[in-house]
Amino acid sequence: MNYCSACGSSEISLKIPEGDNRERYVCKNCGTIHYSNPNVVVGTIPYYENKILLCQRGIEPRYGLWTLPAGFLENGESLNDGAKRETKEETRADVEMGMIYSIFNIPQINQIYVIHLAKLKDLSFGSTSESLDVKLFSKNEIPYQELAFPFVSKTIDYFFDDFESKEFRLRVEDIIRK
Amino acid sequence: MNYCSACGSSEISLKIPEGDNRERYVCKNCGTIHYSNPNVVVGTIPYYENKILLCQRGIEPRYGLWTLPAGFLENGESLNDGAKRETKEETRADVEMGMIYSIFNIPQINQIYVIHLAKLKDLSFGSTSESLDVKLFSKNEIPYQELAFPFVSKTIDYFFDDFESKEFRLRVEDIIRK
Repeated sequence: MNYCSACGSSEISLKIPEGDNRERYVCKNCGTIHYSNPNVVVGTIPYYENKILLCQRGIEPRYGLWTLPAGFLENGESLNDGAKRETKEETRADVEMGMIYSIFNIPQINQIYVIHLAKLKDLSFGSTSESLDVKLFSKNEIPYQELAFPFVSKTIDYFFDDFESKEFRLRVEDIIRK
Repeated sequence: MNYCSACGSSEISLKIPEGDNRERYVCKNCGTIHYSNPNVVVGTIPYYENKILLCQRGIEPRYGLWTLPAGFLENGESLNDGAKRETKEETRADVEMGMIYSIFNIPQINQIYVIHLAKLKDLSFGSTSESLDVKLFSKNEIPYQELAFPFVSKTIDYFFDDFESKEFRLRVEDIIRK
């Protein structure tokens, strides 16, 4: 932050506002306090019978690696609506949304991931502007060496652990980046 | 947003960036896209035996009404850590954190609430700069007519419903503001 978005002044300093206990960007000219808070990433683990749907990333970072459909929650959305939208945007699939299945805290990058179970309504899916390829994988077809992010491999492992017993339960976990 | 926080230009327009599908504030001068996304509010329902701990708000909005300890998740925090911090700040209580118990989407104000169960470690708690009073209430002592927000009354109701059976389960709900 170089300039105050309210008044345009360049006199921005990092300080603890009165009544607060952490440093914020504060404008010396107009007094506006500029807060910065974590973002929520919403996504799904889409499944069909005993297979799950993965997307091959067509954008950086991790271009070419496989991921679950997920992206930033937008203003005006619920977690459920955002996850459904991201799934449609990245796989073209229509899903029947299920429970919140995994939540990951990634404090180093100020992100919270919330992943829902989602059942594919049919076999209509395919590549998009963000996904080079979109495919169903059974447990022993998963490209474990080519998964894009830890939240993906962890959620897939949970899914196949629970799939056998048909008892899906919420997992909450911190992912600590080096 | 009146000025670009990157370059200070006042030439900010609301438009859909290339490859995106919703309007963002974009600086015509330097091209910076200014994203705005929902915030996460973290809190707890602190309990001790068959009673829950509420705070009487000492700040606006809803000054004087009763609430559960909760506030914005900060950068660098997990949901669990943020909820524990807010509980300490608003009640002075030390708690043993439990499961994520209720999640509320409030899309009209771009907020997601995540409330954990939390067991009081002892009876040390009290008023703070944000809370006029902090008190334990049994089910029939709850000041239902003086609760500050819908997320508070809903979480309290869930708690006492589940308390009898000792089977606590996650609730996810949209709160639609008029």
